[in-house]
Amino acid sequence: MVLFSAAQSTKKVVNVALIGPGGVGSSVLEQLSKLDQFKLISISNSKGTYINAAGIPFESAKSELSKASTKCLEKEVIPELAKHQPCIFIDNTSSEAVANLYPLALSHGVHVVTPNKVGFSASLSLFNHIRDASAASGALAYKESTVGAGLPVISTLETLLKTGDKVNKIEGVLSGTMSYLFNTFSKAGKNDEILFSKLVSDARDQGYTEPHPGSDLSGSDVARKLAILSRLIPGLENALTEGVNSVDVQSLIPAGLDGDITPEQFLSGLKDHDAHYEKLRKTASDNDSVLRYVGVIDVATGKIKCGLETYPSSHPLASLTGSDNIFLFHTERYGARPLIVQGAGAGSAVTAMGVVGDCITIAERV
Amino acid sequence: MVLFSAAQSTKKVVNVALIGPGGVGSSVLEQLSKLDQFKLISISNSKGTYINAAGIPFESAKSELSKASTKCLEKEVIPELAKHQPCIFIDNTSSEAVANLYPLALSHGVHVVTPNKVGFSASLSLFNHIRDASAASGALAYKESTVGAGLPVISTLETLLKTGDKVNKIEGVLSGTMSYLFNTFSKAGKNDEILFSKLVSDARDQGYTEPHPGSDLSGSDVARKLAILSRLIPGLENALTEGVNSVDVQSLIPAGLDGDITPEQFLSGLKDHDAHYEKLRKTASDNDSVLRYVGVIDVATGKIKCGLETYPSSHPLASLTGSDNIFLFHTERYGARPLIVQGAGAGSAVTAMGVVGDCITIAERV
Repeated sequence: MVLFSAAQSTKKVVNVALIGPGGVGSSVLEQLSKLDQFKLISISNSKGTYINAAGIPFESAKSELSKASTKCLEKEVIPELAKHQPCIFIDNTSSEAVANLYPLALSHGVHVVTPNKVGFSASLSLFNHIRDASAASGALAYKESTVGAGLPVISTLETLLKTGDKVNKIEGVLSGTMSYLFNTFSKAGKNDEILFSKLVSDARDQGYTEPHPGSDLSGSDVARKLAILSRLIPGLENALTEGVNSVDVQSLIPAGLDGDITPEQFLSGLKDHDAHYEKLRKTASDNDSVLRYVGVIDVATGKIKCGLETYPSSHPLASLTGSDNIFLFHTERYGARPLIVQGAGAGSAVTAMGVVGDCITIAERV
Repeated sequence: MVLFSAAQSTKKVVNVALIGPGGVGSSVLEQLSKLDQFKLISISNSKGTYINAAGIPFESAKSELSKASTKCLEKEVIPELAKHQPCIFIDNTSSEAVANLYPLALSHGVHVVTPNKVGFSASLSLFNHIRDASAASGALAYKESTVGAGLPVISTLETLLKTGDKVNKIEGVLSGTMSYLFNTFSKAGKNDEILFSKLVSDARDQGYTEPHPGSDLSGSDVARKLAILSRLIPGLENALTEGVNSVDVQSLIPAGLDGDITPEQFLSGLKDHDAHYEKLRKTASDNDSVLRYVGVIDVATGKIKCGLETYPSSHPLASLTGSDNIFLFHTERYGARPLIVQGAGAGSAVTAMGVVGDCITIAERV
């Protein structure tokens, strides 16, 4: 990135509209408040929107929401934002309804920055609408934090591709929860007693999983990230017609536990599968290997999949600890040893960092 | 980075002037030739410059150098480039004389992109001149490939800092040669016979070191990279008055071998130190540890140093293989587990990728 930017006095003020002031949204507000280049002109939650083109203090933005009134994002908010350009629409929700508005925002010249995976991992149709609206108006859509939170994953992939490298394969551990579960499970000694169901239950108690651990074990979060990455790769742009639903996913939700059951019922039922996981663990361990839930994009074969795999202990994926994400970019230029990015792939502050980093990049471009 | 850029037809053409068409320079030309946004208008080697504002084909640029004539970069070339903006001055040399011209280029509104470490790791005075010239004119200076070649090192550090993270420590293996030497040395089994001097000699034969291995073993390449990184960190901008010469460097050139001697004399003299290195290796190995030549920037203490250190085998630095670089960013947000970037940190194609990536970023900004 840039070493020195132009003198501060010449910096153009960029307006921002934030939707979804939850954990990540609050961190975004906090990080933006430290920068002098951004002016918050709109804040929305599920109940309504408060717009003030004169500027809303970042520090008190959430309390200003008391002044919010019901406004139609499509017909009232976005057209209003379009009058205050340059403007960035920051979507911190995980809502499909909001993602469906990106084409409208972009066609109004409003830039989009989001950690919301839906818009880029759902149907190819929505994805193409976003792309076309951006191309037509020149408004930008950035989404670094949809994959690996603040880690430089999408930017690295795009630099590789834009400079003409050929990406052969991307593989990695793309879920903090899956990372934690199998790093811990496989780290246990050969003779240790470790029950997979208890590990999942403990992880849930410690906040490592969603309230319903099935959400994590389904693998759909990993599949969404694979969809986002694969659509950046020449030849794979149109591979996943149904986005996340077109990815070849190995769900770790056992048959019979995939219905509408409570987390407690789920964890109880998972106990029946402890022997299965213990066998996998022992077999891997006997071969000086570990279990990892990995996502793989194999460009040559067009295979985009995620599932439980075994890696020898000398493999970079085996050295993973904690709940870190890891991404291995196997490319023509990097040859036998991939470019690797590793670190926390979840958490409010690091996700917000990805969002704010994108906002800064847009501010540098407009 | 950006998902979709504006339609190609709206892309502004950016002129480039390349100086130093060697290994990296040739790769830069090759990578730029695949992009439709750049026009080569000047090419220089140590003998002269050929300027053609109508455009020089990238493919035949090096042969066009036959038309080059002696031109003063300062008085003839840069003022001419300034007439053809936007223009990027790409310095692929390792020349201090060329680095000294960055302030002039920037003050003429000509952007600078370079893998040349000198301008950013020499005296604070030159560094400040570059910064001030950039701030005054708004012209940009990018240098991603000065550290870790194409790896996203500087961009990652800048995103962390710009978004308000607090960097506590950066540590890593910043030299491909040092990486190869100690990865190989420490990997050898406890009872294996491995002589450090023979390892260095073999590495030289295989092209892993400079023609004179002392250049690598001095640690100065690592120190230069530490100078570049540290100057980006608040509080350390002015820490190194003499740049690379202010870094606390442990040179691995033994006393008595630091004079003006041939590579052969150097390698022969190094044999007297095999027992010393073998002892270090055995001691580390006995403690389930490995040797690594690391660079460290400790922000709290202001300590910026490089030298040979011992790391337990479970440490991320211990898992390094081949000649990879690795960078660990310990920050407030990332907490106990650092953000890690790893991969090849040298080579023409990946260094050129860093250069071309910077050119693309500038093209997106102008």
